[in-house]
Amino acid sequence: MDVIDTYVENQQQRFLEDLIAWLRIPSISTLPSHRPHIEEAARWLRDHLHALGFQAEIIPTEGHPLVYAEHGKDQGKPTVLMYGHYDVQPPDPLEKWRTPPFEPVIEEGYVYARGASDDKGQALIPIHATETLLRTSGALPVHVKVLVEGEEEIGSPNIGSSLRAHREMLKADVALVCDTAMFAKDLPTLVTGLRGLLYTEVEVEGASRDLHSGQYGGAAPNPLNALAKILSGLVNRKGRVTIPGFYTRVKPPAPEERRMWASLPFREDAYLQELGVDAAPGEEGFTVLERRWVRPTLDVHGISGGFTGEGIKTVIPARATAKISMRLVPDQDPEEIARRFARKVHRLAPPGVRVQVRVLASGRPVVVDPAHPALRAAARALEETFRRPPVLIREGGSIPVVSHFQEILGIPSVLMGFGLPDDNLHAPNERFSLANFYSGIRAVARFLLHLAEVLPR
Amino acid sequence: MDVIDTYVENQQQRFLEDLIAWLRIPSISTLPSHRPHIEEAARWLRDHLHALGFQAEIIPTEGHPLVYAEHGKDQGKPTVLMYGHYDVQPPDPLEKWRTPPFEPVIEEGYVYARGASDDKGQALIPIHATETLLRTSGALPVHVKVLVEGEEEIGSPNIGSSLRAHREMLKADVALVCDTAMFAKDLPTLVTGLRGLLYTEVEVEGASRDLHSGQYGGAAPNPLNALAKILSGLVNRKGRVTIPGFYTRVKPPAPEERRMWASLPFREDAYLQELGVDAAPGEEGFTVLERRWVRPTLDVHGISGGFTGEGIKTVIPARATAKISMRLVPDQDPEEIARRFARKVHRLAPPGVRVQVRVLASGRPVVVDPAHPALRAAARALEETFRRPPVLIREGGSIPVVSHFQEILGIPSVLMGFGLPDDNLHAPNERFSLANFYSGIRAVARFLLHLAEVLPR
Repeated sequence: MDVIDTYVENQQQRFLEDLIAWLRIPSISTLPSHRPHIEEAARWLRDHLHALGFQAEIIPTEGHPLVYAEHGKDQGKPTVLMYGHYDVQPPDPLEKWRTPPFEPVIEEGYVYARGASDDKGQALIPIHATETLLRTSGALPVHVKVLVEGEEEIGSPNIGSSLRAHREMLKADVALVCDTAMFAKDLPTLVTGLRGLLYTEVEVEGASRDLHSGQYGGAAPNPLNALAKILSGLVNRKGRVTIPGFYTRVKPPAPEERRMWASLPFREDAYLQELGVDAAPGEEGFTVLERRWVRPTLDVHGISGGFTGEGIKTVIPARATAKISMRLVPDQDPEEIARRFARKVHRLAPPGVRVQVRVLASGRPVVVDPAHPALRAAARALEETFRRPPVLIREGGSIPVVSHFQEILGIPSVLMGFGLPDDNLHAPNERFSLANFYSGIRAVARFLLHLAEVLPR
Repeated sequence: MDVIDTYVENQQQRFLEDLIAWLRIPSISTLPSHRPHIEEAARWLRDHLHALGFQAEIIPTEGHPLVYAEHGKDQGKPTVLMYGHYDVQPPDPLEKWRTPPFEPVIEEGYVYARGASDDKGQALIPIHATETLLRTSGALPVHVKVLVEGEEEIGSPNIGSSLRAHREMLKADVALVCDTAMFAKDLPTLVTGLRGLLYTEVEVEGASRDLHSGQYGGAAPNPLNALAKILSGLVNRKGRVTIPGFYTRVKPPAPEERRMWASLPFREDAYLQELGVDAAPGEEGFTVLERRWVRPTLDVHGISGGFTGEGIKTVIPARATAKISMRLVPDQDPEEIARRFARKVHRLAPPGVRVQVRVLASGRPVVVDPAHPALRAAARALEETFRRPPVLIREGGSIPVVSHFQEILGIPSVLMGFGLPDDNLHAPNERFSLANFYSGIRAVARFLLHLAEVLPR
């Protein structure tokens, strides 16, 4: 054991207590009623960073505020920008939680709470790692900047303008993002690509008022029937999205990526069992991992309108709305796809209804070059901590900020995450492995040391 | 003016006050929380009938109670069974009401309230008519039985067993049902056919938990996408229901019915304008009226599952449910169609999901013979009151009890209703024309007189 391992071991309990205190704050970004908790979570982090010796501040945006902090300013050192998010998903369906989502519970090596893995537990890792280096060596090998946002779960609508507004302040050589998962338990993982997101809302209007289906059924537009036609027409029997031009810019993965992925410990039968299904439908001609990582998709998230209460109501609703998102892959462009999507939706709409398409959020897909020195520093740190070299994979989820780092700040991101595939992200009983929490802190501390060696000063 | 007209004119204000008192009780049958109001509405009616000299009682069922009353028992007179319902639809969407749904308001000749037209206003008509005959002649020309139920808006699940249990008590020569609309203002109308109803719920299950669409999108079943496929597959581009055998037992209307309907004051452009749409999609090859009256249809009423709140949530829900109903026409059989529907739904389900189909309510379609003496008595009463012969039409809605009267009690029903097409049934701002309320009372009083003349004693 070196000084890093020893320090982390000695501080385990307190590191965990910090996390628990933060998890208790229900900072749900999508619900306006939770705005006070958003602010409380931001303040908690600023105060924590301040206590560590950071220059820390809360930066307002048009939405939820950013927490920003710096430590170790020294013109001679490379700069790393550490990103995380303090906002969380809503906990619904609440009744499916075994313990309350905002009362963290430790059970069999996991902490259970909304946000445990996504992303408060992970966002604290680089901060605890910085503390570890400060307390064990008295100084930081790199110039550390911390940026933690409060709108990741709603598609980071203001992160782009914030990065542009504070471009000089945020200047860095590389970003570190702890918001991804390891491919499997004990298998250290670097993510070299993320899917993008286009999240839309399609509103269908029929008659100017709700109608009785007895009186009018058969001779009036039904917005729910119309939505079913539209949604059904967006994906064909082979799992292909039918929007014209949707696949034009899609890049296939490199042959060596496909080979590495084929050797990963992935069994489709175990995957089906984990999901509790007998088939994992998707685009024909691709493996499950390819479909999740490098193929675009389209999912419906919810449909409102009409009557969904107990019992029956024979209503033809005046309007109905569907939330639909597409996951995008390099080099699909969200704006272009949004235009193509809207055109297709209008074309699919049956007679008698009026259709509106709104874009609620979007983020570009990302690829990171595995040969970048920062990626190699990260691989070395992971190997030293986990005693095996990391696997390089892609992720199906979207972290909009990563593409903004590339485009606005011109820097690549190291996606070194410590979640596990069964952390129940966005679902009831979200959890985070404590072993990964502590290993993550050790690995990131080493990454910062190696970064200082490989990056040009 | 005869004694009937005079009495009704003198009692207008009090007849209306009775109605308003009843409308104030929010007797929503589909919401369990409203059970006390259901009981209050039943008690109100029983007490009102009792005060008129009826033998009146509340009869419990497995669901909401029936109100039953008798007057004028005399073995020598024909018996009429007057039916109505005291339950109402939920008022949602509440925010669309200009005045609160359970605080009746009189405006420009209409009373506005949930249940005004469907059916409290209409259910009171034969009762006020009975009062009119009693007070003007001191006796009733027929033996009157009153049956008012509290479950019509939830598909009358217990009316069949109640009719069977009280077959002897309910014995009658004919039923009178005031729960339909006139074809147009000032156009007295008899309805000679009703569509039936099959109301179902289709539940689709995917993974055993909610999934993150980033992590899993493209390689996991999405119950909402699956529902869209199922719902979309149930009706084809020509507006035909695709369930095999769905149309096998459908009877075309008689040529004279089609001729009479073609001469009705109906303009498709005015219909479209009234609905606020530019097309009234439906089955190809049939007129709007035919599609509403004698063609079966399929409508989606609501879809639950996933996220429908403000903002975005990238969830693939573990399950989703749709409420779907079919309107049936003679001689479709609800049980047979339910079996065929379930088979088709299972066949349309994409791989990876499990599907359950539940029947929530059903009622048979009905036709009444226009040559029946009671129909002729009704036509005469309407002509005397409105100064023009009634039109004979069909109705698209379902009144399950009418088919039960035919099958269980062996009696036909006279469907003499006084609603108007723009009464906003099942929608915000439901209303009932006061002119029709009073004319209805006069017409039904005359109908009872003529019934005594034409029916065998």
